[in-house]
Amino acid sequence: MSEVGAAEPWAVRETALPRSEEDLRQAESIFALANGHIGLRGNLDEPHPCGMPGTFLNSLYEEREITYPEAGYAFPERTQTVVNAPNAKPITLRVGDEPFDPRTGTLTRHERVLDLRAGTLTREVEWTSPGGAEVRIRSVRLVSFQRPSVTATRYEAYADAPLTVESDLVVNEELPGGRDDPRASAIIEDPFETISYDRDVLLHRTKTSRLEVAAAVTHTGAEGTVSSSPLHIRWTATGHGSITFDKFAAYRWNETDPREQALKDRDAAARDGFDVLLDEQRAYLDDFWDGADVEVDGDPDIQQAVRFGLFHVLQAAAQAGPHPIPAKGLTGNGYDGHTLWDTETYVLPVLTYTHPDCAGMALRWRHSTLGAARSRARELRLDGASFPWRTISGPECSGYWPAGTAALHVNADIADAVLRYYQATCDEDFMRTAGRELLDETARLWQSVVYLDEQGLGHIAGVTGPDEYTALMDDNIYTNLMAEQNLRAAGSPVRLHVPYDEQRQVHDQSAGFTRLPAWDFSDEDYPLMLHHHYLNLYRKQVIKQADLVLAMVKRPDAFTTEQKRRNFAYYEARTVRDSSLSAPVQAVLAAELGHLTRAHEYLAEAALLDLRGSGESGGDGLHIAACAGAWTALVMGFGGLRDHDGRLSFVPRLPPRLTRLAFHLRWRDGRLAVTIKPDAVTYEAKHAPVDFHHHGDHVRLAAGERVTYPLEPVEDLPAPPTPRPPRTISA
Amino acid sequence: MSEVGAAEPWAVRETALPRSEEDLRQAESIFALANGHIGLRGNLDEPHPCGMPGTFLNSLYEEREITYPEAGYAFPERTQTVVNAPNAKPITLRVGDEPFDPRTGTLTRHERVLDLRAGTLTREVEWTSPGGAEVRIRSVRLVSFQRPSVTATRYEAYADAPLTVESDLVVNEELPGGRDDPRASAIIEDPFETISYDRDVLLHRTKTSRLEVAAAVTHTGAEGTVSSSPLHIRWTATGHGSITFDKFAAYRWNETDPREQALKDRDAAARDGFDVLLDEQRAYLDDFWDGADVEVDGDPDIQQAVRFGLFHVLQAAAQAGPHPIPAKGLTGNGYDGHTLWDTETYVLPVLTYTHPDCAGMALRWRHSTLGAARSRARELRLDGASFPWRTISGPECSGYWPAGTAALHVNADIADAVLRYYQATCDEDFMRTAGRELLDETARLWQSVVYLDEQGLGHIAGVTGPDEYTALMDDNIYTNLMAEQNLRAAGSPVRLHVPYDEQRQVHDQSAGFTRLPAWDFSDEDYPLMLHHHYLNLYRKQVIKQADLVLAMVKRPDAFTTEQKRRNFAYYEARTVRDSSLSAPVQAVLAAELGHLTRAHEYLAEAALLDLRGSGESGGDGLHIAACAGAWTALVMGFGGLRDHDGRLSFVPRLPPRLTRLAFHLRWRDGRLAVTIKPDAVTYEAKHAPVDFHHHGDHVRLAAGERVTYPLEPVEDLPAPPTPRPPRTISA
Repeated sequence: MSEVGAAEPWAVRETALPRSEEDLRQAESIFALANGHIGLRGNLDEPHPCGMPGTFLNSLYEEREITYPEAGYAFPERTQTVVNAPNAKPITLRVGDEPFDPRTGTLTRHERVLDLRAGTLTREVEWTSPGGAEVRIRSVRLVSFQRPSVTATRYEAYADAPLTVESDLVVNEELPGGRDDPRASAIIEDPFETISYDRDVLLHRTKTSRLEVAAAVTHTGAEGTVSSSPLHIRWTATGHGSITFDKFAAYRWNETDPREQALKDRDAAARDGFDVLLDEQRAYLDDFWDGADVEVDGDPDIQQAVRFGLFHVLQAAAQAGPHPIPAKGLTGNGYDGHTLWDTETYVLPVLTYTHPDCAGMALRWRHSTLGAARSRARELRLDGASFPWRTISGPECSGYWPAGTAALHVNADIADAVLRYYQATCDEDFMRTAGRELLDETARLWQSVVYLDEQGLGHIAGVTGPDEYTALMDDNIYTNLMAEQNLRAAGSPVRLHVPYDEQRQVHDQSAGFTRLPAWDFSDEDYPLMLHHHYLNLYRKQVIKQADLVLAMVKRPDAFTTEQKRRNFAYYEARTVRDSSLSAPVQAVLAAELGHLTRAHEYLAEAALLDLRGSGESGGDGLHIAACAGAWTALVMGFGGLRDHDGRLSFVPRLPPRLTRLAFHLRWRDGRLAVTIKPDAVTYEAKHAPVDFHHHGDHVRLAAGERVTYPLEPVEDLPAPPTPRPPRTISA
Repeated sequence: MSEVGAAEPWAVRETALPRSEEDLRQAESIFALANGHIGLRGNLDEPHPCGMPGTFLNSLYEEREITYPEAGYAFPERTQTVVNAPNAKPITLRVGDEPFDPRTGTLTRHERVLDLRAGTLTREVEWTSPGGAEVRIRSVRLVSFQRPSVTATRYEAYADAPLTVESDLVVNEELPGGRDDPRASAIIEDPFETISYDRDVLLHRTKTSRLEVAAAVTHTGAEGTVSSSPLHIRWTATGHGSITFDKFAAYRWNETDPREQALKDRDAAARDGFDVLLDEQRAYLDDFWDGADVEVDGDPDIQQAVRFGLFHVLQAAAQAGPHPIPAKGLTGNGYDGHTLWDTETYVLPVLTYTHPDCAGMALRWRHSTLGAARSRARELRLDGASFPWRTISGPECSGYWPAGTAALHVNADIADAVLRYYQATCDEDFMRTAGRELLDETARLWQSVVYLDEQGLGHIAGVTGPDEYTALMDDNIYTNLMAEQNLRAAGSPVRLHVPYDEQRQVHDQSAGFTRLPAWDFSDEDYPLMLHHHYLNLYRKQVIKQADLVLAMVKRPDAFTTEQKRRNFAYYEARTVRDSSLSAPVQAVLAAELGHLTRAHEYLAEAALLDLRGSGESGGDGLHIAACAGAWTALVMGFGGLRDHDGRLSFVPRLPPRLTRLAFHLRWRDGRLAVTIKPDAVTYEAKHAPVDFHHHGDHVRLAAGERVTYPLEPVEDLPAPPTPRPPRTISA
């Protein structure tokens, strides 16, 4: 458990140095700074203690061969792994002859603050050295939202003693070993070879993927001397009593002449100065929060967590540009830095309504990988495009196909994100140059996958749906319904089968699911996948994560309310939420069905997973989809937002403990502010007219207009039993 | 294609040096000698040319770590791979200054004969060296059936020139690299470290598995000098005009004091001499053939092939003792030297009726691995014992679980082999000490796997049947019926579901199979697994190998004749026989249903696969199950032998081209000779009375009694279409 202090509305505060390595790693994820292009884990300024160093440059990866005990045709032969880029974070302080190390001497104050409006990580330290010197340090770190290539640190140290600072840019730094968890990432040692180096900039290249990266660094505010070597630039400065300086770094990679570009960006940042960068950062975030903020009264933890989540979603996406949004953002090397369906399904809906440009760019990135997806489809003897289960630059990198390549739904998820983005923005240029082709090519894939029975009803055999405790099933409802939507959007409608168990009066997650043997839920060794063979999991009625429940959220039109209610109860009793993708979805449906406290509990489980986590660790990076999940649970759950039919609609409600929920959405040219209180809901349009539905009734507000409706009372129904109780919320 | 000459009834003859490396490898498999304990690939005497060296000692293996791109719980962490043991085959001849190398000079005669009654590999060479020396060589090699640890070679060379022989025992010899086929084996380089060496015996140890092996060698008949080094013993002798000697080697491993034992065995062999070994060999084989021979009139290729197959089945099993019978016998390193379900399902039925002691020993070996199988069951959260898909010493070594661990049917296959062996032998000691426990522990496994529906009917979800182009299916008929038999035999009867498609009036290989999309059979890139992703194969109606058809052979009681007929036609049209296990089974059912020529074609396909193969290569070892398949197709197919209900029964018939089929079976204390001619079938009991059924009628013959029935005429029905035409037979 990290040392995150009491909930604050706009900040995350650490008030003690994390004690264990695991806690340190988690704190490094929580306090990571990123702009979608560059990510810096929240490592301390000094190199030690350190859980896992991390400087991630979006799409800077190394390639590795995949070896299989028993290979098969079209099993990917290479994978991509994010590498730890040249690190400009380290600043080592020496006080007299003593190195500053917070683990020695007496640490009388340690405070780090992630400021969600300033976009900075501030640190304050008071420390007495083993020799008795009293030292104060203050540092402020930022990764610029407005200057994608730039990071900067302001560093101040005070002591009544001679002070020496060594400020480094270091390549191929030593990394701790991996862990014994199949979900952990590969560690690539020494990924870089040197092309050139001097006192200003290092130019390196990954050894196998041959990607070039330039890292330039400079310091202002104090005089220092610079030395360099093939893997190192070091700036050394001394002072007495105090030493203060600003450090600017700029990275350029995967482009022509990155060295010159990095120098230019560094120089511009240093010339403008740290204060200007701070101002730019705040201005960027002010604009973001104006259209994205969510206010929650009645649960301070959730208030903090939803902003923390939105901030990290923004950090994962803001300047990703034509690059992917990885499942861990740029906060860690988990999942090897890969992008999965999480992005389109869990992250892009949030960005679509809070920062639509980022959603559009992420989909343009998908479009840029169409070549690889077409090749993959050919390889699989399918038509159209088959997008990868996990990748950095486009090719399939999954090494376990039953839960990778077989999860064809990722293609429908991409189409779903395209539709949502287009509906919310009317971005015709996107549709013309990327969206339409994504819809058409994924639809072509489905046309080659779907087969018709004698009644002309479509089926999909042998694929894996969202639930990874079931694989290679026929007629997975989620896949079928999403493929159906995909085909319809491309103008090739086919009706797909939706299996239903007449006897139990519930839908089958996949054909025959409800007739599988029961799972013995007396076992509580979660996650089950670390304690049970897939053979055992796959053939029983145990569900890792929302699957049919996700289908009921994404395609509510395909189910009656009574079906939803019975399905929810049936699947709630069989879902263990071993994936962080589950709780937000269950929260949304629980809210819809009136299980308001259960929805609040799932909201808390998603929102606090990384911020106040225990057990499910974010040490190798935050779960960006869970970060998005707090918004999802609040806005789609209690706000009742749905958008499956091209209309923006709301069915608002509040759980007992919340006294107010307000959120802002961007919709086409306007913005909509929604404020839900126990007795009323108010909608206000800004900048442009907004059309939406309230409880099924069409509403059109002119710019600046607002309307208030009484809140329809919803009884907080007791929730159906679940084998794994959700996170409890304080009363 | 190897250079095997015209069919001879009791020999396989090679009349030219194979030209390509692939042909050389295949010939090395065909001409392999083995006794179940030791196997020598048919490498030439001189080290070059060589396709793949091979000296295999049963259960002498190295361990390797298995690494997975994405590991899962209870995925095996280590695998076992057969190693190339110390090699006592190499004999290098020098004529004057010229080395004998059949690729140089002029090879005027090259002949190798595998003599199926003598149990020897004889070689005759006439060669003119580049320098003009005329050389004759004759060698005879044997692996003693009666002395499990002993191999011997008689070597004679003649030339009007000075002759030098270097005869080696060599450890860690260089191996060629592996091939690009997922079914190929791992190559373990330099597996051994030296414990001790001298001029008589080498003692080595595998580096990781720590298995010790002693190899002793000696030469008689000529004077020579011996040198030794840690990886080598070399005997050098010279002569003029001629040189002749006998070479004896003895191997001992996986036991205490192997060095002393090897020396003792070597000395005994050398003392008794090569001629005694030859006599012992022939006596052993005379007895074998007396109870096992199959005579075929009308198709000389099949006559040769069925004896070749029986000989290699014997070679794989004779002295295996408490060790497994690998899928490739000891003829190559294919499948890493692993034993699979092939043994119990395809090989043991043949041995049960031709050399029952070997079948019993193989099952005792299974019993000896019960500890590992119980541990594996625990790991899988199942009861009883879960035997491995592939192994050498017992632990699961499969690295692709959907076609490995998920193939739970292997447990029922073992039980089936136990029942057959016990019925055929009444070996009470075996049943008391091994068989009963195998039946009970596999039945306990099924009890924990089978679940009952509301009607009390049993189901098995999410397992893989014999057909490896379908995986993780529910209610695989073969698995269900074999598990049902297993449970019944252990006294815990449960009726299992047998899915049936009422509309198409055929059984479903697994639940829903007949409703899967069709395969496009215009593609002829066989084997399909090298050209199609499993995703594609698994979800369509394409079948690698007999699965439902095997169920109809093993459990004929579960199907009516009309069902068999419709099922056979339906599945024949969807089966591509990408496994060598398929054709013999299809032959049996084709014969039963009156598709006699089709049965003959499948018989030929199985019987000639390795001996006269093309394409499907046996270069990394013979397909021992296919070797057994010739017997199966003849005896179970045309003989109509069935034994599923504890009774031995026959429904004999002959395909148009065969004029006579005679075979011998061992049954309890007696032997039964069956002779089928176009107009009559004769049964003769030997040694003891034999009970059996002829066309359903009970017959009891006293020892020495014979009975003749007219052969009931069977019309040769046209065979249903198949996407991949079987091997053609000449008219």
